[in-house]
Amino acid sequence: MPVKPLTALNKAISSRVIVELRAGREFRGVLDGFDLHLNLVLKNSEEIIDGEIVSRADSIIVRGDNVIYISP
Amino acid sequence: MPVKPLTALNKAISSRVIVELRAGREFRGVLDGFDLHLNLVLKNSEEIIDGEIVSRADSIIVRGDNVIYISP
Amino acid sequence: MPVKPLTALNKAISSRVIVELRAGREFRGVLDGFDLHLNLVLKNSEEIIDGEIVSRADSIIVRGDNVIYISP
Amino acid sequence: MPVKPLTALNKAISSRVIVELRAGREFRGVLDGFDLHLNLVLKNSEEIIDGEIVSRADSIIVRGDNVIYISP
Amino acid sequence: MPVKPLTALNKAISSRVIVELRAGREFRGVLDGFDLHLNLVLKNSEEIIDGEIVSRADSIIVRGDNVIYISP
Amino acid sequence: MPVKPLTALNKAISSRVIVELRAGREFRGVLDGFDLHLNLVLKNSEEIIDGEIVSRADSIIVRGDNVIYISP
Amino acid sequence: MPVKPLTALNKAISSRVIVELRAGREFRGVLDGFDLHLNLVLKNSEEIIDGEIVSRADSIIVRGDNVIYISP
Repeated sequence: MPVKPLTALNKAISSRVIVELRAGREFRGVLDGFDLHLNLVLKNSEEIIDGEIVSRADSIIVRGDNVIYISP
Repeated sequence: MPVKPLTALNKAISSRVIVELRAGREFRGVLDGFDLHLNLVLKNSEEIIDGEIVSRADSIIVRGDNVIYISP
Repeated sequence: MPVKPLTALNKAISSRVIVELRAGREFRGVLDGFDLHLNLVLKNSEEIIDGEIVSRADSIIVRGDNVIYISP
Repeated sequence: MPVKPLTALNKAISSRVIVELRAGREFRGVLDGFDLHLNLVLKNSEEIIDGEIVSRADSIIVRGDNVIYISP
Repeated sequence: MPVKPLTALNKAISSRVIVELRAGREFRGVLDGFDLHLNLVLKNSEEIIDGEIVSRADSIIVRGDNVIYISP
Repeated sequence: MPVKPLTALNKAISSRVIVELRAGREFRGVLDGFDLHLNLVLKNSEEIIDGEIVSRADSIIVRGDNVIYISP
Repeated sequence: MPVKPLTALNKAISSRVIVELRAGREFRGVLDGFDLHLNLVLKNSEEIIDGEIVSRADSIIVRGDNVIYISP
């Protein structure tokens, strides 16, 4: 049975995800929530550039239209 | 009889597809689901750059507005 | 009498079309379907760069917002 | 009395127009139709780059969001 | 009392305006009409690049989403 | 108590504001009006590049989707 | 229990946030309000480039579609 994208995202709640954004940004963190626009809440997030962690945050809210893909 | 794009996409469910995204990204994987925005769920996906696999993931959720084309 | 764009597109169903996309991509194929967003289904499609065929596909689904023009 | 853009466009039906698109593309042809998104149908169209005709088509359907301006 | 943007634009009908577009384009002409998307009709318009007139047209229809600002 | 962005903007009516636009443009002027899209009417506006005034206008209408921020 | 992005943002009201915008802009300030588009009101804001404060403002209204992420 096909899996809707938002359903797949819902299954990833509370688990670690990789979020690839436009302009070469990547975040890794625990998916704490999302909405229909793919705005995301990540906890314990790390921003990664060229394989290195460049910053950490307890929580970030990512605007959905920057997202390329999310990998649970 | 004409085939609507979403109908064509629906026929590709559970089969391998090539997904070309903006900015030179290409993914290959099994289409597990999609929605009206062309957000996609791919299973067993590979990201390919210049013909080489650069990463693999059990599952990714691709935001539709990055998609250029999908080839079943 | 004026011809609406979607009506003109409908007349092109089952015939070969040239589809010019942003970022220098061109596809040629048989128009198999479309929707209001100008998402397209092409059969027996060829991707052409600088006048040369770089890839072929039995079927592709093109996301409408990449389209610059379609020529029946 | 002010003239709405779509009314001005409607008056140009069946006459030759210049259509300037983003990324330096220009088309000239007979305006055969349009819709609310400024999607256009041009007949006997020519694509012009740097003042030279680079291609001709009996008919093209231009996606409105590429249009910068239309000159009847 | 505040002046809504469309009201300000309406006052400029039949007078000369400067229209600055993205990608360095500037048009000057008589505002003949507009709609809610800021699509514009300009009469006796001139396109100006680096302070020089590069083309003239009796009438042009400008797609609103290219507009940066309009100066009556 | 939180302040909605449009409420904050409304308080700035008739006072001087700095408006930062995309592509390095900055305007300063008296906010004369706005709408839900953040289209703005500025009076006695100055365009500033690299700290220097490059042009002045009695009134300009700025299209909202170019705005990065407005500072009252 | 999942946390919706706007709920997460609401909890950040009156506290300091980091706002990363497109094109390398970063603002830090007290979140004073927001709306559904992620338009933001920041108080006592600082703009930061390459780790240095380049400007300060008592209050700014940021247009939501420039936002990449907000970190409370």
